[in-house]
Amino acid sequence: MTLVGHSRAAAALQRLVVDVPDYPEPGVVFKDIMPLLADHEGLSAVVEALAASGRDEHGTVVVDKVVGMEARGFILGAPVALALGVGFVPVRKAGKLPRETHAVSYALEYGEATLEVQRDALAPGERVLLVDDVLATGGTAAATRDLVAACGATTTAIAVLMELSFLPGRAAIGDVPVSSVVIV
Amino acid sequence: MTLVGHSRAAAALQRLVVDVPDYPEPGVVFKDIMPLLADHEGLSAVVEALAASGRDEHGTVVVDKVVGMEARGFILGAPVALALGVGFVPVRKAGKLPRETHAVSYALEYGEATLEVQRDALAPGERVLLVDDVLATGGTAAATRDLVAACGATTTAIAVLMELSFLPGRAAIGDVPVSSVVIV
Repeated sequence: MTLVGHSRAAAALQRLVVDVPDYPEPGVVFKDIMPLLADHEGLSAVVEALAASGRDEHGTVVVDKVVGMEARGFILGAPVALALGVGFVPVRKAGKLPRETHAVSYALEYGEATLEVQRDALAPGERVLLVDDVLATGGTAAATRDLVAACGATTTAIAVLMELSFLPGRAAIGDVPVSSVVIV
Repeated sequence: MTLVGHSRAAAALQRLVVDVPDYPEPGVVFKDIMPLLADHEGLSAVVEALAASGRDEHGTVVVDKVVGMEARGFILGAPVALALGVGFVPVRKAGKLPRETHAVSYALEYGEATLEVQRDALAPGERVLLVDDVLATGGTAAATRDLVAACGATTTAIAVLMELSFLPGRAAIGDVPVSSVVIV
């Protein structure tokens, strides 16, 4: 595991994330962040680290909304939005959002999925920070970036706890800057 | 709609929650809180109101963990946990949590569901605040209370944004105190 900054958050991740082999299927090592979330110091440290991606070098908030992906991105994204003083927009799995939505289908690390966002969730021109727990293949992040674009808004940054170095997540999301607390 | 306290939060709910008739099925009026979450003032107001259920009359925090129910309870519960200075524990739909879990099945307002919590998520004797968006039949809340009890912990309070007065939610969860920002 390589520390890439945010040492308090990185230390919390190293201490509190549990590797679960062969979950949800053989050959996959699942990164279980539940013990991290259950620890106030750990949760607080990672929210602070993720929120840094929504500020410029002077500490000024440079995003208008935080978008979190279902479901672990909800747990992290909503506190990040509050920390930045902006609103939170959930991107959900198909069929979970009422009213008119945009939808994008994509391939996962294991399987396939469709994500949706409400059409009025973001205003044209808004700057968006995406928050999730893990950047793996980048499929979820790329689909979410496309949903943001479908609303006329722009994904200006992506913040994740963990980036899997053996998968091409950064390549999948093009030129959007990615911040990860740790690379594993 | 009757205001029952937390006037800033109640006003945000009145302004920002959208009634969606016949969703997810005919005859059900869905309370869409997404526009509320996307509004920083609204989100901040409701998190503050929900967190009040984790403090006593002197402002002392009297819970050890916040438990949120998938998925809207994640968006609200994690910020409430941070506001109270405690950890967050998610209760998830069946098959979503790795490692050993407790499971409880129950009837929903529309359909049936199984919820799970990780067995080591709560320590025996811990005091738990449950957070969700809506208290309807009380099935989700009662199942979650049972999961908390299966871990040896105790649900000492339930906080929701909206309580549906035409459904017996409070009766379903026994003598656990319920706080709702508004009764609809």
